[in-house]
Amino acid sequence: MYGIDNFSRRRNVAEVGSWSAIPIPSMKRRLEYARKLLGLRIRFFQGDLRRYRDASATIREVKPDGIIHLGEQPSAPYSMIDSKHATYTQENNVTGTLNLLWAMKEASPKSHLVKLGTMGEYGTPNIAIPEGFFEIDYRGRRDRLPYPRQPGSFYHLSKVHDSGNVALACKIWGLMSTDIMQGVVYGTRPDDISDLRLHTRFDFDETFGTVINRFCAQATISYPLTPYGKGKQRRGFIALVDSIKCLTIAVENPPEFGEYRVFNQLDEIYGINELADLVRKEGDSLDMDVEISSVENPRVELEDHFYEVDHDHLRKLGFRPTRRIDEEIRIMLTDLSKFKNRIRAKRDAIAPRSRWKGRLSVPLHEQSSRSRVRLQPEMVRVQTSR
Amino acid sequence: MYGIDNFSRRRNVAEVGSWSAIPIPSMKRRLEYARKLLGLRIRFFQGDLRRYRDASATIREVKPDGIIHLGEQPSAPYSMIDSKHATYTQENNVTGTLNLLWAMKEASPKSHLVKLGTMGEYGTPNIAIPEGFFEIDYRGRRDRLPYPRQPGSFYHLSKVHDSGNVALACKIWGLMSTDIMQGVVYGTRPDDISDLRLHTRFDFDETFGTVINRFCAQATISYPLTPYGKGKQRRGFIALVDSIKCLTIAVENPPEFGEYRVFNQLDEIYGINELADLVRKEGDSLDMDVEISSVENPRVELEDHFYEVDHDHLRKLGFRPTRRIDEEIRIMLTDLSKFKNRIRAKRDAIAPRSRWKGRLSVPLHEQSSRSRVRLQPEMVRVQTSR
Repeated sequence: MYGIDNFSRRRNVAEVGSWSAIPIPSMKRRLEYARKLLGLRIRFFQGDLRRYRDASATIREVKPDGIIHLGEQPSAPYSMIDSKHATYTQENNVTGTLNLLWAMKEASPKSHLVKLGTMGEYGTPNIAIPEGFFEIDYRGRRDRLPYPRQPGSFYHLSKVHDSGNVALACKIWGLMSTDIMQGVVYGTRPDDISDLRLHTRFDFDETFGTVINRFCAQATISYPLTPYGKGKQRRGFIALVDSIKCLTIAVENPPEFGEYRVFNQLDEIYGINELADLVRKEGDSLDMDVEISSVENPRVELEDHFYEVDHDHLRKLGFRPTRRIDEEIRIMLTDLSKFKNRIRAKRDAIAPRSRWKGRLSVPLHEQSSRSRVRLQPEMVRVQTSR
Repeated sequence: MYGIDNFSRRRNVAEVGSWSAIPIPSMKRRLEYARKLLGLRIRFFQGDLRRYRDASATIREVKPDGIIHLGEQPSAPYSMIDSKHATYTQENNVTGTLNLLWAMKEASPKSHLVKLGTMGEYGTPNIAIPEGFFEIDYRGRRDRLPYPRQPGSFYHLSKVHDSGNVALACKIWGLMSTDIMQGVVYGTRPDDISDLRLHTRFDFDETFGTVINRFCAQATISYPLTPYGKGKQRRGFIALVDSIKCLTIAVENPPEFGEYRVFNQLDEIYGINELADLVRKEGDSLDMDVEISSVENPRVELEDHFYEVDHDHLRKLGFRPTRRIDEEIRIMLTDLSKFKNRIRAKRDAIAPRSRWKGRLSVPLHEQSSRSRVRLQPEMVRVQTSR
């Protein structure tokens, strides 16, 4: 087993004034733990896929059966901060993946690339979302075509760009790839092992924290949960432990050479307010004081819309979800309670700062009077310019 | 009137061992000619859109009503040479356009961006190609969606990436843009002025020369015309002089704020063999010795396919083609005859070198025996590796 990383996530989270709630040991330590606790010997290269020679040297040396490519800037808000962050996101993600594809072509064309995309590539169309492709009739003729993408941020666009590049590489060079349209991931545990030394990072800031993770962290420090806007936005979700199971199934069941296939990787669809209610309910049962206080939406997105998503490909390969969302939220709240101080130390990073267009029309501190709870002053000290 | 350019085209054409058949004076000279011969005062900045400060300073100073953005690496074969050229193409095109969008948002949100895309963004689907969007029924529901893109090279993909980025900027920031899906352009003259000092460059090498331009240059030096593969590939074409008229119409008829609209900019659809025949016919009438000798296709593309394209938006705004293709080819052959020596000097740059996948299955010098004319030895000295 081999890994390559440039550690940009740590730097980028630090840049927005936050850190992982669960402390992350150095890579050296993590590799030691993996050896001791799991009996896994993992070789690791510190490298950057934006440099072709890094991608190429790794692929040339390892000639891997499967490549799980998670090495991208994963935050939509981060990509919307300014031109520098937008271009960084697209260059990092698109160039990294392009270099990987060329390295595969040159040195290891039989590798199976499992590439992490996002359900956000599709946006929220008014028709059902199939897995990557659909057959349609149009003006009396028929074709199977890539499903139209309507992503909502420069980050989501970078994943769409990747999907196009990967599909072409499969078509012209005969490479094989599984492009994972992943739903929103939540959870503190990447597997069934409870040893915290093996856990992955847990981001809760507005920039890198996904919504359930953010809600659980907020509940942990009695910071009101903050659905954006109406809170009727619907998305597909999957527990971290199940998402890892899916990736394993994908990598162990490669497609044909030349095939580019798309998996929608999610378990259930929820609206944002439903999630806030779920977290409050579980929090209440743990005697936590959980409030909900929606804030103006910093994003430009439909807040009330149709959402229907196929996700059969992984089930056909044997995937069965192992977690109920309420159980998992309970585990998260319990795990996070150990790190209350780390979350509280970075509470200023929780309220939305980056915005899809300019300033919020109603400043955050004025919104509190209209919502159910009064935000504490320290919650609303948000930077409106960077 | 203002211009910004980084002169990358000259450098990139030199890199592949060629030059413009029509000699291009320095920018200083060209600006002088424009002033003297057309009475146009054009200010010019040598800058690079990949640097945000260049995009930003220009937009901030000029606050243009319209921006015609042609500043991209335009060659599909160039983007397929290796990882360096693929990533250069996508970074140059995508980052440049992203910086321009951010600069518009920050300093001139009322500018109208006319962005040059390509008909190649659509690929060759088995259904009709509308202008950017289509209404479809799917599983009993209806939506208007971006038309699926199936581009055939990393260059064409860069334009698809741009289209996505521009559409999002219009949606979230209220910018307005016309995205031009341009057909293949041909011609020596950008306008009705016959003064050669005002002509634009004319590339005829396999990397930067478009097909009719290449065929006319080949005819000029009695180098056989080289359709790729079956030659039944169909594409939309437009004369250079008409494409400039279209851009003028587009920029003078801006959309609404927040609107992202797509124009398919072409005049007629032809198959590649038909074009070769047209060039031979016009050449014959000028007493030229024109042969046709198809070569193995260096690209991965359908060679015999359905192709039907809407192109009504520009006509509705008043566009009428002013050229017949046979007349224009005749003008081109006449113009190019003055530059026979410049074309002959770079004849080695005409045969396909860059390939979509590895080497040609039949080396070029063996193909000649199967085709109608025997290629001269100096025509087949192609570099198979770079």
